[in-house]
Order: sequence, then structure tokens, then C-alpha cells
Amino acid sequence: MALLGATLEVCEPGVVHIGLQCHERVMSHIPPAVHGGTVGMIADSAMGFAGLTLADVGEQGVTAEYKINFLAPAVGDQLIARGEVFKKGAKLTVATAEVVAVQPDGAEKKVAMSTATLIPL
Amino acid sequence: MALLGATLEVCEPGVVHIGLQCHERVMSHIPPAVHGGTVGMIADSAMGFAGLTLADVGEQGVTAEYKINFLAPAVGDQLIARGEVFKKGAKLTVATAEVVAVQPDGAEKKVAMSTATLIPL
Amino acid sequence: MALLGATLEVCEPGVVHIGLQCHERVMSHIPPAVHGGTVGMIADSAMGFAGLTLADVGEQGVTAEYKINFLAPAVGDQLIARGEVFKKGAKLTVATAEVVAVQPDGAEKKVAMSTATLIPL
Amino acid sequence: MALLGATLEVCEPGVVHIGLQCHERVMSHIPPAVHGGTVGMIADSAMGFAGLTLADVGEQGVTAEYKINFLAPAVGDQLIARGEVFKKGAKLTVATAEVVAVQPDGAEKKVAMSTATLIPL
Repeated sequence: MALLGATLEVCEPGVVHIGLQCHERVMSHIPPAVHGGTVGMIADSAMGFAGLTLADVGEQGVTAEYKINFLAPAVGDQLIARGEVFKKGAKLTVATAEVVAVQPDGAEKKVAMSTATLIPL
Repeated sequence: MALLGATLEVCEPGVVHIGLQCHERVMSHIPPAVHGGTVGMIADSAMGFAGLTLADVGEQGVTAEYKINFLAPAVGDQLIARGEVFKKGAKLTVATAEVVAVQPDGAEKKVAMSTATLIPL
Repeated sequence: MALLGATLEVCEPGVVHIGLQCHERVMSHIPPAVHGGTVGMIADSAMGFAGLTLADVGEQGVTAEYKINFLAPAVGDQLIARGEVFKKGAKLTVATAEVVAVQPDGAEKKVAMSTATLIPL
Repeated sequence: MALLGATLEVCEPGVVHIGLQCHERVMSHIPPAVHGGTVGMIADSAMGFAGLTLADVGEQGVTAEYKINFLAPAVGDQLIARGEVFKKGAKLTVATAEVVAVQPDGAEKKVAMSTATLIPL
């Protein structure tokens, strides 16, 4: 994440937001947008960290699987991945994320939505 | 992908393999493995490119969605994401990928499996 | 759906709810809960119909894919699958659904959440 | 499954095939094909049972999530869902299934592919 320049914007119980400036290094040329794999990476991280905010002390977790739908090209000044725990269970936790692209005028465009299954280790 | 140091290993009609050396920049510290988002990125790319190998001249495509299951920590000398078109259709194409980690003795360990839905633009 | 005894509870632009009484015919014996495939079927239908509520006259649509996470055994008096369009696009639409089990005291328990990719025909 | 008239065709370690005659009760009218939810149900069952064939005596399992891509209308004499364990792990197992429609001349048409995450109870 450091390699990408991602930043932690919000971290509360069950909720984590990750920001990513749309700088040149993370942009594809064709099309001129942030690569889907990068969008997936910040969504995945936002969901994984959201799950960790509800874990017991010393408990670790891993992502068993995630799924992401791309809704529009990831173009804007900044991406924000908003991860949230949908249901925490004893054996697995389900989290969701939406990724928006913040436009120069501050408006947000939905670019992706994702779900993940997290398991404690 | 250049940022990660990924390389194109195989590119045939319907099949694309992408390699990634497990160098320090793409490793997480806890656990000491390649980050799931990075594994997702090479799987996504292998599937997207596999779809493109069957596209008509001038046709472009985008990934509508992908899903990835993580099977084991991505630890080894190199990761290989093997993407393959499962079914090419007029309105959408489904591709799959498996990601393996090549061990020092050459053995391969399955680390992830993925499916993607691709649409022509 | 008729075979299962499912009913249309809500049908508004972008939103469709489907109900299913937890009668004996749709219950598994071990565990004593509505079969996951049946839960998937009402979630799938709620999302597909939610997409259709926003379609143009004469336009048909199909589900390209759906994914469902099971959160708890589907036990209760009735299941309700609440489908909603998350984003309608020209080439594809993404919908989500949550399935709840209504308990004898009226409380709702989350039993599944799902996402679907719909394409116009 | 009995309600649908599904039958167990193959049951070996790690592999389960489920058949479904395309009789009138499981067909939609528009389009004239087996309903996607029914296709999902036999795929889900084939994967779940495939996982159970590798379980220890007395161990039970549940499906944490599944995902299915629809590839073509489910039209034919019979559907066959071929479930297979892709990787069995201690905490979770990943299985895949493909569903084919057997045509009057015996040819098979791919109608769906699916993946599932199974957890032991």
C-alpha cells in the first residue's frame, strides 16, 4: 500500500476508509484510469482492516475471498475505498466496500463495489 | 504492473500467464507473503489479457467483475498467474485464473483461484 | 418460484422484495433450515426483478452472474429477499440483495447478502 | 432437491455430479429455460456434496458463499452439475462446478460455472 501511496482516512469500529491520490504511477494509459487491480487492492484492504477493527486483541485475520464489480472508470483526483463490516461472526466475517472517485468539483462517482469473506487466524 | 515488476510469461490465444518475482517491495511483513491485493492484480490482469487474445482487431474490453479465493499464503520465489478463457460469448466472456507460488525446489503451490466477467467495449 | 411458494412483497423502481414462507417443502432436515440454493434463488430473483423495474419498455435482461454469502441458518417464519439496484449502467447493472429471516417475535435476522451483474438483452 | 427432481449421478472422493431433467416444473416460460436460481441450486449442491466426500466421519460443513456465472440459456434434455474440490484446507475448502445442458444428440453445452467456499462445522 505504501508503494501505491495509499492513506488511511477513517478508522473506527467496523469502518475503514482508504484514500489513494490518482497520481501518474497508479494510472493506466489505455484507458486513462486507475488500474482495476489497484482499485481492488484498496477495496480489499479497506474491508480487511474494517474486519480487524472488530477483532479481539492479538487476533489476526485473513481474507478468504473477495469479489469486486467495476462500475465506471476510476478517474478523478482521488479514490476513496469505504470498507464496512456487514456481519461479524465467530467463524467468518462479511465486509463490503464501495470505491468512489472524487471529482475536481468534490462530487463523488461510484467506481466499484466489493464484498469480502474474512476468517480469524 | 510495471510498478510491481510483473512479466508476461505466456501469451497464446485464450491463455496468458503473468509472472511476479517475490521481491521485497511486493511482500507484506505480517504475514511475510505477497499482499492479497497484489495477487488479485496479477490474476485480474492474466484474465483480462487472456480475453483480449481472442478479441477482434481494434476491439477493447473491460473487466466487469472478478472474484478471487485465497488458498494459501503467497510465499515462494515467484508467483505465476495463469489466465484462461473459459467461454467467449458475444456480450461477455468468462475467464478463470489460478495463481501458484513456485518454491525454491521448483514445486508449485496453489495460492489463489479467480474468475472474471469481461465485456467488450 | 411458484413451485417454492414465493410471493412478491414490494415492487418499486429499483427495489423488489420477495417473500418465502418457511414451510416444510423448502426446509432441509439437516440442518433444519431453508436450503442455501433456495435462499440463493429468491435473492437472485429479487435482484433480477429490481433490475427489470428500471428497464425500458420491451427491454429484457438476464443475470450474468451472482454471488451470495450465507451469514446464518435460514430459520424463521418467513424469509424476505430485498433486492435493490446499486448502479444502473448502459451495458450492465449491478444489484444487491439482503435476505432476512423473520422470527416469531417479528425480529429480523440477516441470513444472506448477495450481489448480481445484470445485462440487457 | 427432491422437490426439483434432482438425482445424484456421480459420487467419488472430491467429485459429485448432480443431474436434473429439464421437465416442465423447473422451466421458466420467458425465456424457455431452466431458471438461473435452479441452476445455482444444483451447482451449489454439487460443490457442497463434493466437499463432504472429503470430510472426516461426523464432520459437517456449510457453504460460506458461492458465485455463479451464467454462460448460456439452460436448455436441453438434462442438466448436469459437476462439482469438484479445488483445494481442501483445514479451515476452508474451495470447490468449483460447471453445469452443462445435454442436448438431444448427446452434445453438451456449457451453461454455468461456479465456485464455492465451504467451511467445516
